[in-house]
Amino acid sequence: MKAPSSVAELPVASWARGLGPSAIQDMLQKITRPGVYSLALGLPAAELFPKEGMAEAAARVLAEEGQALQYSATLEPLREQVVALMAKRGVRCSPEQVFLTTGAQQGMNLLARLLLEPGRSVLLEDRVYSGFQQVLAPYDVRRVPVRRDARTGLDLDGMEALLAAGERPALFYTMSDGHNPLGTSLAREARERLAGLAREYRMPVIEDDAYGFLHYEEGGAIAPVKALESEWVFYVGSFSKILAPALRVGWVVVPEWMVFRLATVKEASDIDTTTFPQRMVLAFLQSGLLEGHLATLRREYRLRRDTLLKALETQLPAGATWTTPTSGMFVWVELPEGLDSTVLLSRALETQQVAYLPGQAFAVKGGRSASHGLRLNFSACAPERITEAVRRLGAVLRAG
Amino acid sequence: MKAPSSVAELPVASWARGLGPSAIQDMLQKITRPGVYSLALGLPAAELFPKEGMAEAAARVLAEEGQALQYSATLEPLREQVVALMAKRGVRCSPEQVFLTTGAQQGMNLLARLLLEPGRSVLLEDRVYSGFQQVLAPYDVRRVPVRRDARTGLDLDGMEALLAAGERPALFYTMSDGHNPLGTSLAREARERLAGLAREYRMPVIEDDAYGFLHYEEGGAIAPVKALESEWVFYVGSFSKILAPALRVGWVVVPEWMVFRLATVKEASDIDTTTFPQRMVLAFLQSGLLEGHLATLRREYRLRRDTLLKALETQLPAGATWTTPTSGMFVWVELPEGLDSTVLLSRALETQQVAYLPGQAFAVKGGRSASHGLRLNFSACAPERITEAVRRLGAVLRAG
Repeated sequence: MKAPSSVAELPVASWARGLGPSAIQDMLQKITRPGVYSLALGLPAAELFPKEGMAEAAARVLAEEGQALQYSATLEPLREQVVALMAKRGVRCSPEQVFLTTGAQQGMNLLARLLLEPGRSVLLEDRVYSGFQQVLAPYDVRRVPVRRDARTGLDLDGMEALLAAGERPALFYTMSDGHNPLGTSLAREARERLAGLAREYRMPVIEDDAYGFLHYEEGGAIAPVKALESEWVFYVGSFSKILAPALRVGWVVVPEWMVFRLATVKEASDIDTTTFPQRMVLAFLQSGLLEGHLATLRREYRLRRDTLLKALETQLPAGATWTTPTSGMFVWVELPEGLDSTVLLSRALETQQVAYLPGQAFAVKGGRSASHGLRLNFSACAPERITEAVRRLGAVLRAG
Repeated sequence: MKAPSSVAELPVASWARGLGPSAIQDMLQKITRPGVYSLALGLPAAELFPKEGMAEAAARVLAEEGQALQYSATLEPLREQVVALMAKRGVRCSPEQVFLTTGAQQGMNLLARLLLEPGRSVLLEDRVYSGFQQVLAPYDVRRVPVRRDARTGLDLDGMEALLAAGERPALFYTMSDGHNPLGTSLAREARERLAGLAREYRMPVIEDDAYGFLHYEEGGAIAPVKALESEWVFYVGSFSKILAPALRVGWVVVPEWMVFRLATVKEASDIDTTTFPQRMVLAFLQSGLLEGHLATLRREYRLRRDTLLKALETQLPAGATWTTPTSGMFVWVELPEGLDSTVLLSRALETQQVAYLPGQAFAVKGGRSASHGLRLNFSACAPERITEAVRRLGAVLRAG
């Protein structure tokens, strides 16, 4: 047997052999150069973090909780707070159905680890959060794209045809609200039909609701699919976008019997224990500060969204179209024919120091191209900076 | 194709089908009953956590760091602090070789995910930290036990024979210091020989040094195997036992080329970002408080160890033997013939309200039995409580 001659030739798992930095990691490098106007990442506004409330929460937890820094069993009162939060999204559940995770990404990861094995298929929208494709990378599963379009929404006819033809996916992954990257939300009828398909075909659905609490319309938000189908829809939630990403606190809502299995999978991953940041989040929620904070975020992000949309009107070349998000952090732009957003990105960075994420970062391998699309974030920049960023972006796109 | 009739029949991955609560989860339930004297878990002493230093660190980070709660790239200054800490263990490395993780458990998990694939074998000591076997659970790999004995140490002859016969393990997992569950440490000569075998047979070694900083002898500690073989030994470190588990901050030291791959695997798991607790650890280390804290831990834990050892002398039945740990948190007891520690545990809990972990929790499936052994922890109880716990344990064991 041929041994590697040095550790640099160590055989890594086959799925990991071609592993390079992800689009997000790559972008992080490029846009941290000083002076870059970035509309690229899905960052919440750092200046809006409730730092004082968090500092008080940290101090209180350390002063009052003897076990605050210890390994300890799952934090029941935080799961109760999550139940209350879910009720605001129209989802009824019990604390026993809530499982706390290290952010939404870990929630998806643990669910995938529990449910996927070689030979299964996974349905995913063909405009999809890149982190979910990363979750799938180590598994020998077949990816089956379902069309999700900026204008026409989710292709439920196509999905039903697949299911009726015998496709039995281990999972379907979707975002109903503030879709990343499209910025769109599913219509109420689409949610109802999706819930029906999940029920009829016993199809587990991961509903990633990272952005569902950030909604900008007068009437409020529509309830997620989880509210319509409590058994077959596994809900993934997060405090990253509504509180602070660096706390790494998220949750899933699943049938009760799945919770202890997820706990065992999580214990193997990074120990299933009540971490200090979970206690900080709990203390913050118990202070009653979240509602006011969410109101601030909604007001500020709505302003930023409107600033972005207005700037696009005046700056983008004829033929470009874009979405008008009712929730979340993103606008999706589709360029006139002949323009490739990946090609234009280097020019945008070099000549105008402006950054976005090219559509291809969100395309499914082997599926429909997204090279005419690009994703813009409106949460991370102050309004005046958004206006200038779009002015620069417009100059690049108009020059083609 | 037969569809499940309800979500409770959902096909989970085959490795997860028989998944029950782990021995540790199960024990957590039992010993949290009031009144139980627990020597079961590997908990650090909660009353010794540096809560004031941590509270100051949290306040300072939130006041001074604009990005403290944001997603952000890896925390270079913390990696530099880890390099300085490694130097105290006799290991030379650069910040580029340090990768920050969510505790030691995640370090092992990410390494396994990167290196394991179906058909490979993994060497592991036949008395082994149960969390490492949990890491292996989802992988279709062959577990090859190598004898690690409380008295005779690690069977390096046996390991060499396996390697010479052509065994090419994807990994060998070991703890050189404060072995969990044995409480023993490898002799200097054994470390040298293991380093030589790793080099000669190009065998990747995961050296789990969670307890290496907690050493109790006058002359200080021996350097880990990583200090003798920097290429083929992947070092796993943690702040859980020396600072606070609930911060979930650990690290690995690996060849530089592996770091970006681990970063990509971690990004898929739970986002590779500088979390708030990492910044707290950094602020604490920058305050220069760790050395004094470690001195306190060593002094207090040495006292607790000595209290435990003295109590065992008077309480255990004739024929019982045990280890005298020079580092870590555990003593391993071997019972006289005919006594089974799993059987006795229910009696210990019921009649004497005293808890330990039975040896079988640390045995390798299909390998040598450990039912005559049991693990005792001495870090989590105050000395007088240790004495009483051992008195109760002695009553159970002497009754057989």
